[in-house]
Amino acid sequence: MRQAGRYLPAYRRVRETTSFSALCRNPSLAAEVTIQPVDEFGVDAAVIFSDILVLLEAMGIEVRYEDAGGPRLARPMRQARDAHALREADPARNLGEVGEAIRRVASALGPRGVPVIGFAGAPWTLACYAVEGATSREFSVARQILAADPAFFRSLLDRLADAAAAHLRMQIAAGASAVQIFDSWGGLLGRDAWRRVALPPLRRVIAAVRDLGAPVILYVGGSSPHLEAMADSGADVLSVDWRLPLDEVRRRVGEGIALQGNLDPTRLFAPLPDVRAATREMLATHPGPGLIANLGHGLLPTTPVDAVRAFVETVRAAAGKAPRGNACGKPS
Amino acid sequence: MRQAGRYLPAYRRVRETTSFSALCRNPSLAAEVTIQPVDEFGVDAAVIFSDILVLLEAMGIEVRYEDAGGPRLARPMRQARDAHALREADPARNLGEVGEAIRRVASALGPRGVPVIGFAGAPWTLACYAVEGATSREFSVARQILAADPAFFRSLLDRLADAAAAHLRMQIAAGASAVQIFDSWGGLLGRDAWRRVALPPLRRVIAAVRDLGAPVILYVGGSSPHLEAMADSGADVLSVDWRLPLDEVRRRVGEGIALQGNLDPTRLFAPLPDVRAATREMLATHPGPGLIANLGHGLLPTTPVDAVRAFVETVRAAAGKAPRGNACGKPS
Repeated sequence: MRQAGRYLPAYRRVRETTSFSALCRNPSLAAEVTIQPVDEFGVDAAVIFSDILVLLEAMGIEVRYEDAGGPRLARPMRQARDAHALREADPARNLGEVGEAIRRVASALGPRGVPVIGFAGAPWTLACYAVEGATSREFSVARQILAADPAFFRSLLDRLADAAAAHLRMQIAAGASAVQIFDSWGGLLGRDAWRRVALPPLRRVIAAVRDLGAPVILYVGGSSPHLEAMADSGADVLSVDWRLPLDEVRRRVGEGIALQGNLDPTRLFAPLPDVRAATREMLATHPGPGLIANLGHGLLPTTPVDAVRAFVETVRAAAGKAPRGNACGKPS
Repeated sequence: MRQAGRYLPAYRRVRETTSFSALCRNPSLAAEVTIQPVDEFGVDAAVIFSDILVLLEAMGIEVRYEDAGGPRLARPMRQARDAHALREADPARNLGEVGEAIRRVASALGPRGVPVIGFAGAPWTLACYAVEGATSREFSVARQILAADPAFFRSLLDRLADAAAAHLRMQIAAGASAVQIFDSWGGLLGRDAWRRVALPPLRRVIAAVRDLGAPVILYVGGSSPHLEAMADSGADVLSVDWRLPLDEVRRRVGEGIALQGNLDPTRLFAPLPDVRAATREMLATHPGPGLIANLGHGLLPTTPVDAVRAFVETVRAAAGKAPRGNACGKPS
């Protein structure tokens, strides 16, 4: 899950003078906010600060980020000729700032033994934004177009799969030790539709970065119906939302794959003893190895910083690590 | 699922001169738009036109319906003293217009052999609105308050359960042959949290109307994690979203309960032959008895009327009924 963000005072200070969009394009500041949660909490890895929609911009789609309504596309894609207007993503040229931010974070955190995680949107989720043109509760326009013109939708997914693969390869080359693919809106498709529509282009993305050796983490929001299909994606780690306990997830996906998750981020609004208890409860649903402890979705902007710290410290204690671990390079 | 609405030209004509809120409070017009889909498509039952939030209004909460942003509460409930301000719902007095609309529909459709279905929101979903104060993608404020102050939340759920039970009893007494409970936001809770938080007050609602003999239909949006718990609710029919095929739902809930669902409403935007094929496919996932064919969520306002007709006719054909059935009281 994205770690940097509005819940952190240090991040908000940066944002006072820099828009979200400008921050994504500023390698120095993006690196700075990426490192903030590592300094603050001693987490085991840093997730690069960026946005999945920078890839659409790199393909020639104009995206405006509005503080209230979220991202908005100037010209949503609704038919085949819209997709023809997309240019091929050339991440080295068009997304150089993401690569540069990763290089800076890797060089700052490498000596501290903290890896950097890059990311991209899954083809289905990128297509949802490209077609809907804005964020949405149900992305019903995108789903309508999928029903009305599946051939257009499939060709769009193919283009986005190529672009996402190139974006991830560039990030790994720049120093990302692992990459995460966010299918935030995968849960809007039914079980069979996700397997038929969303999985094939996703598998292509994962297969296309396989030779670089970086583990691939797959997050699907609303993952409950899709767990078995997610396990067929080729990903090394399945990152799941909070809706099913991890023992049930494990039962459904089998043993040969790591899990990441899955505390409900709204539980961080409880009194601190309850946050710790909820974290221990979550960990207890997956007592064996093969778990990357995390939330089941992104941190909310109003999350109390102390609750994030309580979560991280409870996880570290359960793993037998000292409260701040070796985040500062000191033996713990 | 609600049948009347913006996708119907006849409904839009009524709305040209009547706001949504006024329509809910006008028994004559509410009855008229309730009957429209029966006349138009020959469906087997009529769902009363109303809104789940009229019950909050009856409890003294001011709700404004905005065409763009949906319903909005003047004063969201965030703490125990807010809940004390709620008055007890007295549906016979405060929701008399819903009862009157049901009486009118029952008297118009009874002779045609078409029953009326009443409805109410589930306590969890009503609480989501009462606390969040507006519709929301994730109702994260409501979920935060649940984490921060579970005692308040539980007392609110109890109050809402009493109110929902009274509302349903009144509707059955007015002539509703069955009632549906909408837990539209149940899917925002994890599996165990739904069973622990949402199910007990819901069971109380269902138990409280049991003696009146009207079957109870339970809809949960995002039902995939909750199917087994839904089967423990005491409901006679489980209405499920489109995310799992009905054979999988049946396998998980067992045999002794009817199902309702579950075509993805966005499939109605496909070309008509594809709508028919998708409907037949959905029906084929539940070949035996015990299915009320329906959508997996409400109709979208831009749904083509011909697609709704194609859906209904495909279902009727599969059930061996004539295209318009006996909706007009004529032998078919």
